[in-house]
Amino acid sequence: MNAEEIFRIIQRKKSFLCIGLDTDFKKIPKLLLDCEYPIFEFNKHIIDATEDLAVAYKPNLAFYEKLGTAGQMSLEMTVAYLREHYPNVFIIADAKRGDIGNTSQMYAHAFFKNLDVDAITLSPYMGRDSIAPFLETDGKWIILLALTSNEGSSDFQQLQLKNGMRLFEQVISTSAEWGTVNNTMYVVGATKAEALSGIRKLIPEHFLLVPGVGSQGGSLDEVAQWGMNDRCGLLVNASRSIIYADVTNKFEQAARQEASRLQKQMEGILQSRGLI
Amino acid sequence: MNAEEIFRIIQRKKSFLCIGLDTDFKKIPKLLLDCEYPIFEFNKHIIDATEDLAVAYKPNLAFYEKLGTAGQMSLEMTVAYLREHYPNVFIIADAKRGDIGNTSQMYAHAFFKNLDVDAITLSPYMGRDSIAPFLETDGKWIILLALTSNEGSSDFQQLQLKNGMRLFEQVISTSAEWGTVNNTMYVVGATKAEALSGIRKLIPEHFLLVPGVGSQGGSLDEVAQWGMNDRCGLLVNASRSIIYADVTNKFEQAARQEASRLQKQMEGILQSRGLI
Repeated sequence: MNAEEIFRIIQRKKSFLCIGLDTDFKKIPKLLLDCEYPIFEFNKHIIDATEDLAVAYKPNLAFYEKLGTAGQMSLEMTVAYLREHYPNVFIIADAKRGDIGNTSQMYAHAFFKNLDVDAITLSPYMGRDSIAPFLETDGKWIILLALTSNEGSSDFQQLQLKNGMRLFEQVISTSAEWGTVNNTMYVVGATKAEALSGIRKLIPEHFLLVPGVGSQGGSLDEVAQWGMNDRCGLLVNASRSIIYADVTNKFEQAARQEASRLQKQMEGILQSRGLI
Repeated sequence: MNAEEIFRIIQRKKSFLCIGLDTDFKKIPKLLLDCEYPIFEFNKHIIDATEDLAVAYKPNLAFYEKLGTAGQMSLEMTVAYLREHYPNVFIIADAKRGDIGNTSQMYAHAFFKNLDVDAITLSPYMGRDSIAPFLETDGKWIILLALTSNEGSSDFQQLQLKNGMRLFEQVISTSAEWGTVNNTMYVVGATKAEALSGIRKLIPEHFLLVPGVGSQGGSLDEVAQWGMNDRCGLLVNASRSIIYADVTNKFEQAARQEASRLQKQMEGILQSRGLI
């Protein structure tokens, strides 16, 4: 999938919503716990209930790794289910990997060849040769951590460099040379919306993956105001606020309702920008 | 395990060797491919052949993730085998994780509770709250990326900050406050031995995990010269140069021979420092 194809899905669905599948055994409805793969079963229900409202789904690897082989199975089944039933959905493995070249090659194989997701989140700390192996597969994307939504983003990401840039700005400006607007996105937290206008000066055309709307408190309007470009250029993620909107056997309707609320807001924004 | 206990194992084994289990299906002897879990089988043979020479083993998660559930099983079996047969070995999951707090908590559970390794490598980019959940389990360690052995370490890690420090120095000096010398180590590449003396000024007492001796070309003598402290303070890792020393059915003897060569060199260094 290239940037133009993502934009066309955004236009068709009138949405730039990404739904985070941070699926936690302890939080899913009890009635699913008897299934052989409760995590997959929950994801399947959430996906079926929200697919027309979401451009992307983002399984968070930690939640699957915690469950060992059963988690790995649930992850593989979730991706396979999306591929089979909703081929035009963009699938992001939220894995935050990154290692020396020969190791990153292994991760690239694991995520792009075997699991067959469209994109993986990566940490930039180890530099270019830790990222390059992920750029070798046509149609697959890297999503580099730039300025994250958590409090700890001030510890290093926002440090001032001697050249006047902040670290996250340097990460963006250096790494933008490694790939293209058709295989590279950046993570910028919704809680840091005021930084988006500066980031847009560095990378006017790249897609940004923006977590932090919902449970973490970021504002969708502010994100759109500062971060949107003329091809939308945003995937805004909500995880817990959608998938755990209700924990009874009405969880699907509640998830759909919350996803729909965000989609409606996004539709309004896209309209006001003349993008749909 | 605390730092003193690690030092005692170092003294007993006259070694500060860590063996990286970067076990690649394509590189293991053909005769193992008929086993149900060839990767585990290979690891088991390597471990049995080298255990008296090595203080630590470090499975590299990418190599296991690449194999999906079979890889996960092989990883779990490898850690369980070490725990059962060699309880005094220090086990490091080379995973380079790090995410927002509630996600890092999941990873901490996956690695420290379920898999039950002693330590995990982490990327510092997301700051304190991405690391803190890993410091909550007594006896378990974080190993933070500081200055890595690859070429890309110059992209960001070595950038000069406005305050005069380089990023990796700031990462070390900030994060040293998060934990203690009994639960925090740092990754410093052997190919960057000249930086070790500066790092030792910042953290005289912490253990350092030093990859890059062997296939990557770092020098053990230089690492010891600049990085060793009065409790050794070093775990030096070699992966491919040991485990793929030979790919015929003599692989165990060849791995032992290479591990033994490094151990002998380490014994000499420990003796010359009066540490054994």
